[in-house]
Amino acid sequence: MSLCLAWQVADKHCLVIGAGDVAVSRINHLITANAKITVITGDGDIHPDFELLRGKLHKVVQRPYQLGDLTMYEDGIEFGEDIDDLDYEKIDKYIHENRFEVVCCCIDDHKLSTKIYYQCKVAGLNANIADKPKLCDFYFGSMINKESLQIMVSTNGKSPRLLKLIKDNILKSLDGDANHAIENLNAVRAKLRQKLLEDDVKTIELRMTWIKKLTDFFSIKQWGDIDIDDSTAEKIVGYYPEYPPRDYEEFKQLL
Amino acid sequence: MSLCLAWQVADKHCLVIGAGDVAVSRINHLITANAKITVITGDGDIHPDFELLRGKLHKVVQRPYQLGDLTMYEDGIEFGEDIDDLDYEKIDKYIHENRFEVVCCCIDDHKLSTKIYYQCKVAGLNANIADKPKLCDFYFGSMINKESLQIMVSTNGKSPRLLKLIKDNILKSLDGDANHAIENLNAVRAKLRQKLLEDDVKTIELRMTWIKKLTDFFSIKQWGDIDIDDSTAEKIVGYYPEYPPRDYEEFKQLL
Repeated sequence: MSLCLAWQVADKHCLVIGAGDVAVSRINHLITANAKITVITGDGDIHPDFELLRGKLHKVVQRPYQLGDLTMYEDGIEFGEDIDDLDYEKIDKYIHENRFEVVCCCIDDHKLSTKIYYQCKVAGLNANIADKPKLCDFYFGSMINKESLQIMVSTNGKSPRLLKLIKDNILKSLDGDANHAIENLNAVRAKLRQKLLEDDVKTIELRMTWIKKLTDFFSIKQWGDIDIDDSTAEKIVGYYPEYPPRDYEEFKQLL
Repeated sequence: MSLCLAWQVADKHCLVIGAGDVAVSRINHLITANAKITVITGDGDIHPDFELLRGKLHKVVQRPYQLGDLTMYEDGIEFGEDIDDLDYEKIDKYIHENRFEVVCCCIDDHKLSTKIYYQCKVAGLNANIADKPKLCDFYFGSMINKESLQIMVSTNGKSPRLLKLIKDNILKSLDGDANHAIENLNAVRAKLRQKLLEDDVKTIELRMTWIKKLTDFFSIKQWGDIDIDDSTAEKIVGYYPEYPPRDYEEFKQLL
């Protein structure tokens, strides 16, 4: 099985090599995650949808892959010998401005794409080589994206079509607006955190227990059907350490 | 939003620093993914469950984190200057034997864990520092693991408790044995690939269309309720490029 992870690529450089249909799919994943995307188109076909995505890309280089592309944003930064005394600011700059967080290679030339994988590994970069499962540090799953809610479904490559049926089932199961439910409960949580500023372990625990119990008062559908804004959140949190009405109709009177 | 990825850590070194409850959770994720796990326990409490996991770990170092731990398996391997002429075998060895694919730091000492994050970045390692979302290359999602089927649900940190309700809903939605359905269809797919060895683009396309149409014949529950072994798969694939009976009862006669 895989180690399923939610990668944080927002405002980090990501590289896509190729501009065909697989590349377009990778680019869409990266756009969702707010990555700074550089595309080297390669010499294959450019997918018609690629043109529609251009405006969302950081940089497009219209030529085949070249030696040096993997380090195109590096500027010879050095961190010194003493890794016990690091310059954090310099490293943050490096993470966000100089290095590719992930490299997705989507070209048909298998000899070249194999070489790109090994070049990535020597450069310490995370890579996915399309159509070469053994040359992938990670695979892409099938996604349900609803702003605050993300669901990845993977059959580990075993049945892509059944994946679609499973996704359809899951979508149907999310009865009500699960995303809105998450945002409502997050508003309450943020307000509670604001009210109980102390970050000692005991306060955090009490806060967590309270919000957990409150969440269980209603179903996803019920949480999704209401609108909690800053002032309603204030009213709800006003009950702490007690609880607002557990009866849904009564609770709704607060809003 | 995040870039949700299925990371391939099987037989690759992964490092966990700490042995408390968060560490135990990380270790469980890594065991599921068949990683080679090294744990440096740190000087905090050791969770009772940790002892139960010991047998599944590659190495346990019972002491605080030390400078040099991040590169403990490196052996001064050099790849040479010419990255256009790489020794692939040597790099494969390096990937599997000498470097940590991911580092999970789960200790309470925030000053030290911050330092570990930046040391990881300088060493080109992927890191997750518990309780420090800004010092995380990736987050862990909440998982539904069913062998061939993996589902990750993330509310991007917004409502951990609602996550539980959403997971319960999804589990209920997977009516029938979705995992078994995947395995059954995979058996058919493997047999078809075996039969149509040619890997030209046209053959691959025909194969994909056929299996796609076949998958849509029945529901997940129906695919999960039967048992397709090698000889049944042979019978089903025998119909190619035509199709086996679309009627479920008739289809079951083949098995």
